[in-house]
Amino acid sequence: MTDHTVKSFQEELDGITASIAQMGGLTEAQLAGAIESVSRRDSELAERTVQEDRRIDTLEAEIEARAVRVIALRQPMASDLREAIAAIKISTDLERIGDLAKNIAKRALVIQGDFDTPVRLIQGIARMGRLAQGQLKSVLDAFSNRDAQAALEVWRGDEEIDEMYNSVFRELLTYMMEDPRTIGVCAHLLFIAKNIERIGDHATNIAETVRYVVTGIPVADDRPKGDKTSSTSVGA
Amino acid sequence: MTDHTVKSFQEELDGITASIAQMGGLTEAQLAGAIESVSRRDSELAERTVQEDRRIDTLEAEIEARAVRVIALRQPMASDLREAIAAIKISTDLERIGDLAKNIAKRALVIQGDFDTPVRLIQGIARMGRLAQGQLKSVLDAFSNRDAQAALEVWRGDEEIDEMYNSVFRELLTYMMEDPRTIGVCAHLLFIAKNIERIGDHATNIAETVRYVVTGIPVADDRPKGDKTSSTSVGA
Repeated sequence: MTDHTVKSFQEELDGITASIAQMGGLTEAQLAGAIESVSRRDSELAERTVQEDRRIDTLEAEIEARAVRVIALRQPMASDLREAIAAIKISTDLERIGDLAKNIAKRALVIQGDFDTPVRLIQGIARMGRLAQGQLKSVLDAFSNRDAQAALEVWRGDEEIDEMYNSVFRELLTYMMEDPRTIGVCAHLLFIAKNIERIGDHATNIAETVRYVVTGIPVADDRPKGDKTSSTSVGA
Repeated sequence: MTDHTVKSFQEELDGITASIAQMGGLTEAQLAGAIESVSRRDSELAERTVQEDRRIDTLEAEIEARAVRVIALRQPMASDLREAIAAIKISTDLERIGDLAKNIAKRALVIQGDFDTPVRLIQGIARMGRLAQGQLKSVLDAFSNRDAQAALEVWRGDEEIDEMYNSVFRELLTYMMEDPRTIGVCAHLLFIAKNIERIGDHATNIAETVRYVVTGIPVADDRPKGDKTSSTSVGA
């Protein structure tokens, strides 16, 4: 292998990593836009957020194609192979986060005209959203710095989002029961909260991938599961 | 490369494919158990279904590790590489389907004591579930037969699940408004329906992967999106 080839291979991997950083930035902006369009009832921002998702989808397809090509043509070994595999996995998670954010923005559009929803509920969801934004930012930083310890902290932090989701879930159901006219809006808020909880899960996936890149240890199957709402019984 | 090496490489790929088939079978059973435990209000079956998910998780980790190893050690080209990449992608989707089925079974456990829910709602969800089961079975067959045409039909069929989800969603909300005592149960049914809709999406992902394996064409970004409920406004 000549120096030229080696350099060019490293350049390719660096290029893919840079694209993931870009995709990460877009996804962060997408999530911020989604959460803000809910909390500020900003339909223009919501529209823009829905549109922006296309760029993330395009980047995912590009990154995946480039990672597969690098594996096929360069046949990387060990840590270089892990980098290429990680690129595929992380871009899949980011694309899903973008999708979920888009779905939140779509729901923001539907509920934006409804001013009966108590500020408290919206605030709870906005708080959950900010937590998820923090997790996403931290895990992208952990990936940039190839920092397994920071990734572990993101992994642990997911429980806080799950706990917050549990309480938002209960609060929403109670609210619907007290005032059935709000059921339509609250059903959307329920899915917005669930989407944020799932965004947290995808940040956790990325944290596991960062650990895999750095240490070579495959993904753990003992992740903490904090979303208890599937077994929450709410008195009818 | 000696004949022995070639054969052994093919054996490895075949082994991975066999594990995916096994994982597919377990996931089908998992989904069937979840849907049945909802429609028959069978808590024993629901418990078993929740437990069974562990085997699917373990298989996913194994398949992924083997696929990465085969890429690292054998450095396959073109269609062999696609097979290995597809193994990673399909096992991820199957694992997610297993998770969603587990979540359905957990919710079945919570609502099983509630006999006020109208049979019509449960039947609608069971019908959606059977559609998703059919999609999963078809796409696994399409993968076994490396049949891009059959995969395309699964891809197209997803719209039917989405449409059914839209109508179940509206029906559930209407029901909650008419009888607020059912809000707790109906919120679970709402998430069960959403989970089935997402299982359909994962079957669609697998269909795209099958097309990629057979034709080498990367995943399309113009898939039909039929879930309109994120922009459904239900009168308060």
